[in-house]
Amino acid sequence: MTPPAEPGTGGAQAPLDRLSLNQITTRGWSLPEAIDGCTRAGIAAIGLWRDKVAEVGLDAAGALIRDAGMRVSSVCRGGFFVVADAEERARRRADNRRAVDETAALGADALVLVCGGQGEHSLASARDMVSDGIADLAPYAAARGVRLAIEPLHPMYCADRSVIVTLGQALDVAEAFPSEQVGVVVDTFHVWWDPQVTTQIARAAGRIASFQVCDWLVPLPDVLLGRGLMGDGPIEFAELLDAVDAAGYDGPIEVEIFNRAIWDTPADEVVAAVKERFARHVLGHHG
Amino acid sequence: MTPPAEPGTGGAQAPLDRLSLNQITTRGWSLPEAIDGCTRAGIAAIGLWRDKVAEVGLDAAGALIRDAGMRVSSVCRGGFFVVADAEERARRRADNRRAVDETAALGADALVLVCGGQGEHSLASARDMVSDGIADLAPYAAARGVRLAIEPLHPMYCADRSVIVTLGQALDVAEAFPSEQVGVVVDTFHVWWDPQVTTQIARAAGRIASFQVCDWLVPLPDVLLGRGLMGDGPIEFAELLDAVDAAGYDGPIEVEIFNRAIWDTPADEVVAAVKERFARHVLGHHG
Repeated sequence: MTPPAEPGTGGAQAPLDRLSLNQITTRGWSLPEAIDGCTRAGIAAIGLWRDKVAEVGLDAAGALIRDAGMRVSSVCRGGFFVVADAEERARRRADNRRAVDETAALGADALVLVCGGQGEHSLASARDMVSDGIADLAPYAAARGVRLAIEPLHPMYCADRSVIVTLGQALDVAEAFPSEQVGVVVDTFHVWWDPQVTTQIARAAGRIASFQVCDWLVPLPDVLLGRGLMGDGPIEFAELLDAVDAAGYDGPIEVEIFNRAIWDTPADEVVAAVKERFARHVLGHHG
Repeated sequence: MTPPAEPGTGGAQAPLDRLSLNQITTRGWSLPEAIDGCTRAGIAAIGLWRDKVAEVGLDAAGALIRDAGMRVSSVCRGGFFVVADAEERARRRADNRRAVDETAALGADALVLVCGGQGEHSLASARDMVSDGIADLAPYAAARGVRLAIEPLHPMYCADRSVIVTLGQALDVAEAFPSEQVGVVVDTFHVWWDPQVTTQIARAAGRIASFQVCDWLVPLPDVLLGRGLMGDGPIEFAELLDAVDAAGYDGPIEVEIFNRAIWDTPADEVVAAVKERFARHVLGHHG
């Protein structure tokens, strides 16, 4: 184990080069506050949420990001393709196109797609709706230089959030498109349990559009908010980073944590903890 | 959809031939009460729990089962192989042998193995411990005519209950042994989300030692107790039963539900609901 990085020292900056703060981790911060907080902490990349961008307006958000010299590692999120009603499907289709436009305007690496849960449909038809939705969106995104990133969610979300539940399945969908147009998200919380994860990360070479990290709390206190800081659960980050590295991914590593207690903590303290845990548990021997 | 079966009529008995009541579903009942309740309801098979058997004693339990003419579709449970401490491992090894002896004495179809969660170990080493534990137990069970049944649990239990999380992975372990010695459990709650489930059920031909059903509640109210009566969630039982049938499994179908509200309901009412939902949602077009 590497000792925690010392904030503010030159030696500690290097291993943090790849750290990106997903905005949901510091949920109480507005976008300007998050940009300032990252700047204070020496974090050069950020994962944006569309509602936070909308609060300040797209143009202003883009200007703030550019002025701060930050990289946008992802935009959360588009997707939710599972819908039978034609009118609602048209609404979501339009919203996904707006999400692509926003991603292009923000110069982000990728638009994350949360594909939608089974709902009242058969699982097979829900999965077909996802494939159809992505096929419909991909050319629009490609024309605007935006990369889509299919995020497999943990299987416990299959009924209500995402019928795409494994990295292998996400790749089955993505591989119908050029890798620069449709990639995948590797999020440790969603994929760590998968006996195939190493194999599928290797298969994902060239398609890893986003790498996100957080830990799995034991016992899981909540289906939605049971995520923890790296080191607070069983996930073996160094092994997963090794696999992602070996697959040729060298982009930002986003810390994305849904957790009530963390949201209730002053965000500067959260950022400090994120940096420390990132250096110790994610970079580890890579640091 | 088939209309609900009418309890107590000759016509309703036939489709219930395959129904087995897992004791946990009527948790408030002792073993004698459960046997009486099944007899009243015309249910001819039961899945036993070792603690309920121990309450009356193994010999008395066996006599009650034989006198009632019931089939024991499974015994829950052995396993919990993930342990590094030598003394604790020896204790669990001895307990697993007792579980085999009890399964033999009860004439049950299989001993269900819940393999153990990751705990403080690396995921790879935890999975090795499972394989080693089964390799150690299998010859003992084979010598006593007991079939082991590896149960893959839902991935949300990987940290604390079972590092075996997919049917494919369970088969990878089971296939090191003859199919009559080591089989697998197909439990709809644990496997329904898996994009590979149909393929892996087909692969499991000859190794399906137990087929268990219950539904997945949405939103999941609790990680441990979020199971519901068939029809209360999204699981497509008829499709899974088709796959299991096609794989040649023609044994009992066990209804196993962990749910506080169901446990708080008078057990005879639960059994009536189980019969009705089983006929309507599980047998469906098979009935």
